[in-house]
Amino acid sequence: MGSLPLDTLQPLDPDTFAVDSSAVVDFLAGYYRDVDKYPVPAADLEPGRLRKLLPDAAPEFGEPTERILDDVRHDVLPGLTHWQNPNFFAYFPMNASAAGFAGEMLSVGLNVVPFVWVASPAAAELEAVVVDWMARLVGLPDRFVFSGGGGGVLQGSTCEATHATFQKGARLVGIPPANFRVIPTTAASGYALTGGAVRAAVEDDVARGLVPLYLCATVGTTGVGAVDPVRELGEVACRHGMWLHVDAAYAGSAAICPEYQGYLDGAELADSVSMNPHKWFLTNMDCCCLWVASPAALTAALSTDPEYLKNVGDAAAAAAIDYKDWQISLSRRFRAMKLWFVLRRYGAAGMRAYIRRHVAMAEWFERAVNADERFEVVAQRRFSLVCFRLRRDDDMVNRELLAAVNASGRAFMTHFVVESKFVIRLAVGGAMTEMRHVRDAWELVQRTAEQLLLQRR
Amino acid sequence: MGSLPLDTLQPLDPDTFAVDSSAVVDFLAGYYRDVDKYPVPAADLEPGRLRKLLPDAAPEFGEPTERILDDVRHDVLPGLTHWQNPNFFAYFPMNASAAGFAGEMLSVGLNVVPFVWVASPAAAELEAVVVDWMARLVGLPDRFVFSGGGGGVLQGSTCEATHATFQKGARLVGIPPANFRVIPTTAASGYALTGGAVRAAVEDDVARGLVPLYLCATVGTTGVGAVDPVRELGEVACRHGMWLHVDAAYAGSAAICPEYQGYLDGAELADSVSMNPHKWFLTNMDCCCLWVASPAALTAALSTDPEYLKNVGDAAAAAAIDYKDWQISLSRRFRAMKLWFVLRRYGAAGMRAYIRRHVAMAEWFERAVNADERFEVVAQRRFSLVCFRLRRDDDMVNRELLAAVNASGRAFMTHFVVESKFVIRLAVGGAMTEMRHVRDAWELVQRTAEQLLLQRR
Repeated sequence: MGSLPLDTLQPLDPDTFAVDSSAVVDFLAGYYRDVDKYPVPAADLEPGRLRKLLPDAAPEFGEPTERILDDVRHDVLPGLTHWQNPNFFAYFPMNASAAGFAGEMLSVGLNVVPFVWVASPAAAELEAVVVDWMARLVGLPDRFVFSGGGGGVLQGSTCEATHATFQKGARLVGIPPANFRVIPTTAASGYALTGGAVRAAVEDDVARGLVPLYLCATVGTTGVGAVDPVRELGEVACRHGMWLHVDAAYAGSAAICPEYQGYLDGAELADSVSMNPHKWFLTNMDCCCLWVASPAALTAALSTDPEYLKNVGDAAAAAAIDYKDWQISLSRRFRAMKLWFVLRRYGAAGMRAYIRRHVAMAEWFERAVNADERFEVVAQRRFSLVCFRLRRDDDMVNRELLAAVNASGRAFMTHFVVESKFVIRLAVGGAMTEMRHVRDAWELVQRTAEQLLLQRR
Repeated sequence: MGSLPLDTLQPLDPDTFAVDSSAVVDFLAGYYRDVDKYPVPAADLEPGRLRKLLPDAAPEFGEPTERILDDVRHDVLPGLTHWQNPNFFAYFPMNASAAGFAGEMLSVGLNVVPFVWVASPAAAELEAVVVDWMARLVGLPDRFVFSGGGGGVLQGSTCEATHATFQKGARLVGIPPANFRVIPTTAASGYALTGGAVRAAVEDDVARGLVPLYLCATVGTTGVGAVDPVRELGEVACRHGMWLHVDAAYAGSAAICPEYQGYLDGAELADSVSMNPHKWFLTNMDCCCLWVASPAALTAALSTDPEYLKNVGDAAAAAAIDYKDWQISLSRRFRAMKLWFVLRRYGAAGMRAYIRRHVAMAEWFERAVNADERFEVVAQRRFSLVCFRLRRDDDMVNRELLAAVNASGRAFMTHFVVESKFVIRLAVGGAMTEMRHVRDAWELVQRTAEQLLLQRR
């Protein structure tokens, strides 16, 4: 594992590979053992800290793996926000798991590029199989599986699947910001869109001569976990010939449990559906399932056929999937291996138990908040996200509460603003998060609030 | 490593993680030991083979890692195209290495998401440091490093960096295909663009009232490895206020050697430059460096600021880099760890030796082709890509030659068409490719050609 000779550098020598990789496995196993001891997020960091620690230029000569790992330990880890810390409740979870890691290792180690079928047939085919498996698990209609005329693809993120964050995407494809509609929601609908509001907005636009194009229904919004009524929105979309996308990035994982599949009711009216196994499905970053009812609509927009990618003497391959035409980029990773490994290793029943465990923790937290009259739950909890706040007119005390909780390094939560109210978000779903971490988080919130309220008297 | 209990599934239990990961390390070390024994590409594969082998649905209960690895070995590997096989000379190389793998393992294991600085400060900062290191190594002008007012970002691919394959990107952002100029090149310029041809095309468009927008100069084209004259094109771009992008996806790696930096002469006239360490720089998929002279131009187009990503009580972070605004997607991987690991482990000197070794192999192949009067080298070789063909008027014999070579499973090459001529591409650059593999490839080409020519008499 020492320095390597220049002239005979063997970057994939199996013995060096095994020794170096084992060192990294040990490093990571140790990291997981201690990850709850790191502050999350890293407190009091000054931008530019790492640049000061590192040299200005790459080293001229190679260094031993152990020395590099030492620098990761001393220079990098203290500056990270530890997403795998069981006390990480911010944003949405970003699951790592032994199986997700194993699948990703295989994908990275094999390092094939399944852009056209012939460039790695089994990789393209495993992808087609595994997106069908997922479509079945979350209860999607037949029109989204290959045998039903639809099909799926694994992309890197929802942004990629919907061709960039919805609003950014609209800007990129040249839709004037003025033609982009953000329809306000209220507490009455649990901060979900309503068919009526969307219909009114669309009809208003049509009356002004505009052409309605694309409607996004979100099942589990990032802000408060709201669920748009897919069927109602689908009826509006159908009437006006709009493309309906169902974004179930986070909550789609819950839909492997029958009790949550109702939220996808009406999905047969959608043109596309997406969800991210890398959030709450134990599949390390990155992995997003995108299903379309009519793959031809996708490939007609995204197909390219440069000479250097044409298959030679391979008539059969014409029937095979060239996934480059299902996405913007040409290059792509063998993500199917990872999702397949997770499904095989944990099984559908294991994944359901995993999801339900997190929901139970969030239910407990919700009950705890409701039982404390100083606090309120702001939007109805449906999955594992709880939105809450101190019952105060001024936002400042809630902002201070969140800042103080995070500054402790003992939990990390984020916020959202609904109807001008500052709301604290607790998103349960870490691979190592257990009931005791959620209990600790609540005690931390209560204790911190007490101090703040005391100071304010 | 056996089946896992449902109720107490511990997806990141350190001991299970270590045991399972070690099994995958052993699996991959064995794969690298035998990878030259696999046919490359897999011959006679029928589309749909894998789907027939796999069940229709995900398993209900989890399975042991060893069983899953057995299925990878028996079901998946025979259907892959083995990009790490030393006899893979197709497309461009897609380098794996022990260091690239180690860095990727760390990134995947830590599984942090550096979209905003506060979401993982050290990850964003390592990225900024490592793109500066790379800019220095390939000799980019100061305007592309952070201290010079520019800066870099790691994206997944050139397509992402130039916002989709150039032509696809134009279509996506609403530029009519009729306004997209593909300027023909000829043997006289080595199939590179010339300042004269570009100037004439631009002036012609301007005279018709069109507004020239974006010019892409390629250093090392995919087809034949041609090098566009960056300075000449830069002068045209400057005169007309066009954005000049320099795409050095493949050949940019060679620019770490001083003898190749001349190809980037004029880069100070460019607005952006990109190169892919995942091709020929031992950095496993995916990793693309994109540098811009004016980050504000990028962030003005791509910045979004939803409430749930706003930093709370963190004034200092305003000065930190939110890399989400440097790319289309919000989510992103900690790619810097991988590139940093490669640079540390192999050093600049090691990487230069690695690049030069491949170029020497390609030079040998070029000389061998030139020494055989039945063959010709079609475009001047500049890096590690050799384009050659049988000297025949009919393309068919060259098509048959390539098909027969690939059908042998003993080498994999691809093709291109220049001036209506079918050309075979041999791209040297695999991490395990040695001189003997290139010699074997040439013998295979010669022997196959002999048989074909004999049949045609």
